[in-house]
Amino acid sequence: MNIPHDEAMPRLLAISGSLRGASNSTAVLQAMAHLLEGRVLVEIALLHDVPPYNADLDGHALPDGVRRLKQAVAEADGLVVCSPEYNYGMPGVLKNAIDWVSRPAFASPLKGKPALIVTTSPGMFGGVRAQAQIRDALAASLARPLARPHVAIPAVDKKLVDGRIEDETTRQMLLAGVSDLLAEVAAIASSTAA
Amino acid sequence: MNIPHDEAMPRLLAISGSLRGASNSTAVLQAMAHLLEGRVLVEIALLHDVPPYNADLDGHALPDGVRRLKQAVAEADGLVVCSPEYNYGMPGVLKNAIDWVSRPAFASPLKGKPALIVTTSPGMFGGVRAQAQIRDALAASLARPLARPHVAIPAVDKKLVDGRIEDETTRQMLLAGVSDLLAEVAAIASSTAA
Amino acid sequence: MNIPHDEAMPRLLAISGSLRGASNSTAVLQAMAHLLEGRVLVEIALLHDVPPYNADLDGHALPDGVRRLKQAVAEADGLVVCSPEYNYGMPGVLKNAIDWVSRPAFASPLKGKPALIVTTSPGMFGGVRAQAQIRDALAASLARPLARPHVAIPAVDKKLVDGRIEDETTRQMLLAGVSDLLAEVAAIASSTAA
Amino acid sequence: MNIPHDEAMPRLLAISGSLRGASNSTAVLQAMAHLLEGRVLVEIALLHDVPPYNADLDGHALPDGVRRLKQAVAEADGLVVCSPEYNYGMPGVLKNAIDWVSRPAFASPLKGKPALIVTTSPGMFGGVRAQAQIRDALAASLARPLARPHVAIPAVDKKLVDGRIEDETTRQMLLAGVSDLLAEVAAIASSTAA
Repeated sequence: MNIPHDEAMPRLLAISGSLRGASNSTAVLQAMAHLLEGRVLVEIALLHDVPPYNADLDGHALPDGVRRLKQAVAEADGLVVCSPEYNYGMPGVLKNAIDWVSRPAFASPLKGKPALIVTTSPGMFGGVRAQAQIRDALAASLARPLARPHVAIPAVDKKLVDGRIEDETTRQMLLAGVSDLLAEVAAIASSTAA
Repeated sequence: MNIPHDEAMPRLLAISGSLRGASNSTAVLQAMAHLLEGRVLVEIALLHDVPPYNADLDGHALPDGVRRLKQAVAEADGLVVCSPEYNYGMPGVLKNAIDWVSRPAFASPLKGKPALIVTTSPGMFGGVRAQAQIRDALAASLARPLARPHVAIPAVDKKLVDGRIEDETTRQMLLAGVSDLLAEVAAIASSTAA
Repeated sequence: MNIPHDEAMPRLLAISGSLRGASNSTAVLQAMAHLLEGRVLVEIALLHDVPPYNADLDGHALPDGVRRLKQAVAEADGLVVCSPEYNYGMPGVLKNAIDWVSRPAFASPLKGKPALIVTTSPGMFGGVRAQAQIRDALAASLARPLARPHVAIPAVDKKLVDGRIEDETTRQMLLAGVSDLLAEVAAIASSTAA
Repeated sequence: MNIPHDEAMPRLLAISGSLRGASNSTAVLQAMAHLLEGRVLVEIALLHDVPPYNADLDGHALPDGVRRLKQAVAEADGLVVCSPEYNYGMPGVLKNAIDWVSRPAFASPLKGKPALIVTTSPGMFGGVRAQAQIRDALAASLARPLARPHVAIPAVDKKLVDGRIEDETTRQMLLAGVSDLLAEVAAIASSTAA
């Protein structure tokens, strides 16, 4: 089989901060993957099988779900994290995944990985209060969260219809974020190649 | 049986932010419990059986470990949270537990509960970068994190000997924090009684 | 002269985080003062004459504007801070004022002072990203920021008409916050009196 | 006059977060400039003449000190921000300067500017609690704070002797940070040139 064009496509890992079956954050990532089809390889990572971080398991006994997530991060050119806000901050579920993947400290698969942060809420504020904590956790892992205006989707449940982002403004905002991410991916590739 | 003095004792729930078997944060809480013996009832909560938060399970299917933790918080007069710092912030494990217990929003067992925050690290900085995130998550749950100077224990592994806090300065700092917590517990009890 | 009722009234100091002449945050505080007239003494503090913090001036040479602000904080029973969000955080102007008033550390006029935080924005998000930083700065000064749902006013310019808050939901949200603040003031007064 | 080698040197703007005459943060920047002499052009920016931000002055009436600072940021290839921690966070003085320079939003001289953050304290914790707030303010201005381990200098007054950094570990830590900053400056120059 021969899919040479795929090899040239950038690979994004899209991580959802919510485990809920009908999660809006997961749905946004799926809609995004659909929009990017044929141009970007998007793998969606759900965090159901990432158990609470326990340093005693962080070695030979690494849980399978963690091993797979670390591998997926390592293989990706960039990350899109999409998450709700819990308690005016980042979900523990998402921070916990970063805690696992960030090991060993300062030398993990997250190092140097550009990342776009997207937050959602059914309410008015679009989950923006989670943005700084997600950014800080990623930066602490030496990932490269994009420096750009926040991408935040309020009233998210009204903007998704049949798994697509029906609201044009939201779709453009999200794609502008992805475009910046791909530009950063390309800049890193070119500076590494040089 | 007759233990009337126990009924009058304040009850503290001591929550460790680390799951590691030889966790220094857990050891600090155990040493604290020992120091307070006979004056304060201290229950230590470990978070091993608190799974990643999933809204689909937050109802009839509430995991047993979460149910027990919510019950323990409800029965406590105050909380002591002791935690390491991961990725310059709060461990996902600890935020995840708060995400569970904080439900339903603004009406959970955490509401009105005074809380002392303690951070530890084997390094120089005592985990202080986790303090603001822990405070923010508790405040968002309407708990009452104490407004007092940070209690932070650097080089924690050198200050614990045989399960006791050998360093006098550290012991006094921790007990001063607990004393402020008990004063807040008493103030709340008196204003509720009035 | 006979104004006994005034002596019994609680005194609130209302601090605006914006220096702009037509500041919405200042207007919200003025509208609030109007709503509370006859029941609460509200003094509004503008920060125009609080210069950039300089430790060399923090002593005999204390700037007059700072001296007045510290005095006003000392005389207040509680604080209402109303602020826009700058750069996804707290205005430097407001943090700078807290830096001055918070001296000497842990023993300043801010110690033990209950505080309600209100944020505003002309945009959608109501300045909520400034809330955690304001809370953290106040807590670090040992003030007592209320643990309650955020009071945040999006599209603030559309909700103010002729210096009054025309939007009923906004007015009720703000008054509910003030009510919680006054309850905390009363609780502190009663526990101090006891 | 002919100083062609200077034209090739990278230009760093070093901003001190403290106004104190004997500021340790300022002294660290001066010592750094001395260490880099002949290889890097370092201009030190003190913030004494940057008044409290007032949107009414942000236009034709821009204060001279602000105009100079914006110009200096625009001309620099990268920034080094060195600051103490006030009230467990970023000094208002420093945030205020960023508030001025960050205008107009998302299109200011800060946009795309790589930045190294250094914190100092006379105490044990090296001012690390200010790091996240400085990073967040810079990122919100679309500057590019480096993703690298924190550079934090505890007991800073003991490490400076006659204006030099006497402690070898501290000097190496600082120079490693500067080295990463210069690498980012070079990477940006090369990707812009390409």
